[in-house]
This record gives sequence, structure tokens and C-alpha cells, in this order.
Amino acid sequence: MNDASPFRLEGQGLLTTDSYVVDPPFFPGGDIGRLAVFGTCNDLAVCGATPLALSLGLVLEEGFRLEDLRRVLHSVRTAADEAGVRVITGDTKVVPAGKGGGIYLNTAGVGRADPGLSLSPSRMREGDRVLVSAPVGAHGLAVLAARESLQVGASLASDCANLHPLCARLAALGPALRCMRDATRGGVAAVVNELASGSGLGLALVEEDFPVDGTVAAAAGLLGLNPLEIANEGVLVAVVDSEAEGRALEILRAHPLGRQARCVGSVAVGHPGRVVLETSIGGRRFLDMPRGLLLPRIC
Amino acid sequence: MNDASPFRLEGQGLLTTDSYVVDPPFFPGGDIGRLAVFGTCNDLAVCGATPLALSLGLVLEEGFRLEDLRRVLHSVRTAADEAGVRVITGDTKVVPAGKGGGIYLNTAGVGRADPGLSLSPSRMREGDRVLVSAPVGAHGLAVLAARESLQVGASLASDCANLHPLCARLAALGPALRCMRDATRGGVAAVVNELASGSGLGLALVEEDFPVDGTVAAAAGLLGLNPLEIANEGVLVAVVDSEAEGRALEILRAHPLGRQARCVGSVAVGHPGRVVLETSIGGRRFLDMPRGLLLPRIC
Repeated sequence: MNDASPFRLEGQGLLTTDSYVVDPPFFPGGDIGRLAVFGTCNDLAVCGATPLALSLGLVLEEGFRLEDLRRVLHSVRTAADEAGVRVITGDTKVVPAGKGGGIYLNTAGVGRADPGLSLSPSRMREGDRVLVSAPVGAHGLAVLAARESLQVGASLASDCANLHPLCARLAALGPALRCMRDATRGGVAAVVNELASGSGLGLALVEEDFPVDGTVAAAAGLLGLNPLEIANEGVLVAVVDSEAEGRALEILRAHPLGRQARCVGSVAVGHPGRVVLETSIGGRRFLDMPRGLLLPRIC
Repeated sequence: MNDASPFRLEGQGLLTTDSYVVDPPFFPGGDIGRLAVFGTCNDLAVCGATPLALSLGLVLEEGFRLEDLRRVLHSVRTAADEAGVRVITGDTKVVPAGKGGGIYLNTAGVGRADPGLSLSPSRMREGDRVLVSAPVGAHGLAVLAARESLQVGASLASDCANLHPLCARLAALGPALRCMRDATRGGVAAVVNELASGSGLGLALVEEDFPVDGTVAAAAGLLGLNPLEIANEGVLVAVVDSEAEGRALEILRAHPLGRQARCVGSVAVGHPGRVVLETSIGGRRFLDMPRGLLLPRIC
């Protein structure tokens, strides 16, 4: 074994990294291993890249069960196979009991950029449509419910998924595809605020148009949380030219991960850099960047 | 800011990763930031690659001082500048107090492979020479002394360094350069055992020929530790054709990091896959792979 492992790439590469500290490491709909593979692949995919290779760094707390470690590693392998990506290099550190959280993972990912694609909030224009690929809020609530053994919605499950198939299909839109994001920490609220500030344009969104599962809406209501601010792990936000809206929704809905895709609003002329939400009760308010850490160790 | 950052690369790339959990994060001769940059660059360099880009993942424990974080990040930047590498993407997670070790870092590194170089223990041949670039044992002892406030050798300092200049110069030896390793966890003992088992050949080394600083020898003696088993962060082990020994030592000694380079033995015909050490008192013994974790959180 060498200290580094080879991959082949011609042209423009992309590099990304994320650490995963989710508590608990196993939850309905996924686990820290799937999260670490899909999360990092998704960061490449939304930049228009094809994930090629991953690195995997483990920080294990003394006492973490070997059986659980095997489960996580099996999960990493299964997820990598699903995503068509190889884990080519890794590292393991063990820290004393009381100095870790059971298991922390880090994945870095290398991807091949699509040379024909230019994705950036700076390409957004007035009238562009904002699309959301799937119901929001499931991941964060599923992890919270598992951690606290909450009885709210036993059927809650993380939406942890590989978004590359959706992203690759949307790439067929060409320049009509302005940019994409996966709505993880801070939920869609964080993403739409990044898009607004990144483009310097306003966004006008309609609360009722966001797909939210009934169980998630009920659980979020009980807990006083806003589903738009809760982390997802399988929700794509895409901005497209208004003329491509129909085609984009068709593409998304043709894939199981995008069946419930919706247009949730558009790029507007007022309030540059901010997001205005038309609320369910007919009012209007700013949807701001979630402040602080809504829920710790959610991904 | 996008979720992933671009780099350019034609041909063969290399990917490597390491997590850094050193305790304390600041120690004589370095800190966790320098370690995270040089350690990962060194893993690429010893594979014959030029480090191009790094990712940086931070796991911060709630309560870690902002001032110390700034110091670490400044150190990352300085080390990256020294190594001629760019940190192009990053991620920060905060974990609750009691679930971390102050600060943990992960770096993954992308390098450009030298297409003319083929480095592998499988290329080792009987008679090849084993070279060590610098005195061994300093890093592990410096960290240990800082952690436990030991009075042994106040002058102990980590050898934390960027080995790429040494590796790149040795590459001029062409096929006479068989393989390289940086002797981190488990010290040179771990590395020479990897070389022996990787090549299926034996190594015959001479204990007295290993460069060891007086302070390190004294401190290791007091603590009952073997300098050959202590982690280094700036020691290169290279195997070269016997005919290239003189030239290789010249190259190493011409650089400040290799001034004290020594030949410590050769590839032998007996004891395939094992390392035989001629000890200082004239005996012979197997130098085995260090068992277990000699010192936790040393890198």
C-alpha cells in the first residue's frame, strides 16, 4: 500500500470535502457512511461534475463497537457502488474515550468537471424559476427523532440520496440551467439565501409550493421548527431559465428522486440579495439565513 | 462560493488523506495546522507526486478558543505557502463540549504524478541501500513532552517539515530510486517493516547508523522508548540502487532537511519480509512492526 492512490483525469477537476459528525450514526433512512459518500458526491454533482474518487478519514473514539464500524464501512462501500465512485485512499485515527463522538468521518471527493457547463449564481436572471426536487425537512427531523427517541412520526426517514443522476440529467438543459445546490445544513432557507446573495438578485418564493410530507409538517409543527430551515440530504435546488421550467420539471419528475419536484418561485426584481416568502396565510416576509446552529450534529 | 473548487490536472493524479488529532495542538517545532499541510503533502511527495491542492475539514469542539483557531488557520496558510500548495475547499463542523478534542483537522491532497517515475517496494532488489534523511524520534517526543509537561529535554522540537524538495531532487536518480516513505506513525520501524513485507525481501539495518539527536536519545532512554519506533514528521526513508548510494546521499545532504542523511543498511537475502537489526551492543534481533498504539494522538 502506498501513501496515496492514483486516479485519471484530463482537464478540469473539482475537489470538495465534508466532515460528518451526525448523532446517532445510524438513523431511519441512512447512516453516517451513506451520508459521507452521498453528501460529498452531491457537492460535486451540483457543481456539474461527475464524482470519480473519494478519500475516507475515520476518527474513532476508543470503545466504538467493532460491529458498528463494520456496519458503517459496509454502508460506505454500498453507497460508493451505488454512486459509481471509488474510495481509493483512507486513514484511521483513534482518540481516547471522552475525546470523540463515537465515529466521525471525513470524505474528500475528486470529480471531473463538465466542460460544457457553466453553473453559478452570477448567471441567474430576473424571471428564472427556482425548482425543488423533493419534499423538504425529512433528514433533520429523522435524525433528531432518532437521537431523542421522540414519538413524533415514527415513520420519519432521512432522504439521504445520491443526487448525481438528477444533476446529470438537468445538465441537458445547457445554458438554461443556471446553478444547482443540495439543501443540507440550514435547509432550503440557507440555499436560497446563498443564491440571492450570490446573484445580487431577489427571490420571490411561495411557502405553499414547497413540497413537505405530512409527517414532516406535523412533527415540525409540534417541535416549533420550520421545514424550510431543516437539513436535507436528498433535496436538489435548481435555478433554470423560465422557458426551461416545464422541461426541467419533466426531467426531474421522470426520476424516482424527483417525482415530487416543484417550482417554488422565481428570481424577482425587488429586494436584491434577499428572499421574500409569500406565506401560507397570504402574508409576505423575508426568509432569512437561519441563524446559529439550529440542530447540532445533524450531518 | 460553490460546494467544490476547481483544479487543473492532465494525466495521472494522486489522492491521499489524513486526519490530525494531535494533543496538544501547539507544540515546540510546529502545530496541528503545519502538520495537516505537510503531512498530507509528504504522503503525495513520497509517491513521486507534486502536491497541487488540499481540502481542509475542521471538527471543532464547542469552547475551542477562537484565538487558537485563528492561530491554526494562519499556520495552515503559512505552511501551504511554503509547500507551494493551495487549500481550495473546506468544511467546518462544531461538536458539543465533551465530544471532541479541541480541534481535529482532516486534509486530503491532490497531486500530479511524475509519469517518468515508478516507485514501489516491488522494485527493491538485493543489495539496495536504505537511506534515512534526518535524525529520528523528535516529533513524538516533542509532543509527548509538551502534553505531559515533562522536564526531559526542554530543547526537544518536532521535525515537522515539507519533504517535497528532498523527494523531487531524489527523483533525478530515475530507476535507481526504488521507493520512498515518510516515517510518521510507528516511526522508521513501521516503515522498514512495510518495505520488507511489501517487497518480500529482508532488510539488514545497523542501529548505530541511524541518526539520533543526543537530546532525543537521552529523553527516549529515560522514558524507556525506542527512537526507531517514535513518530517523525520530517524524516524520509528512501531505498536506492547500491550504485546510486553516494549520489543519493549527496543530494540529500545538499538540502538543509537532509544534512544528516545516513545509509542505515541494505536489502538482504535472508529473512524474507523481515527486518534484522544489528544492535549497538553487537547482537542481532528482529525489528518488528510496533504493536498497538505506542502513544495516542501524536499526529
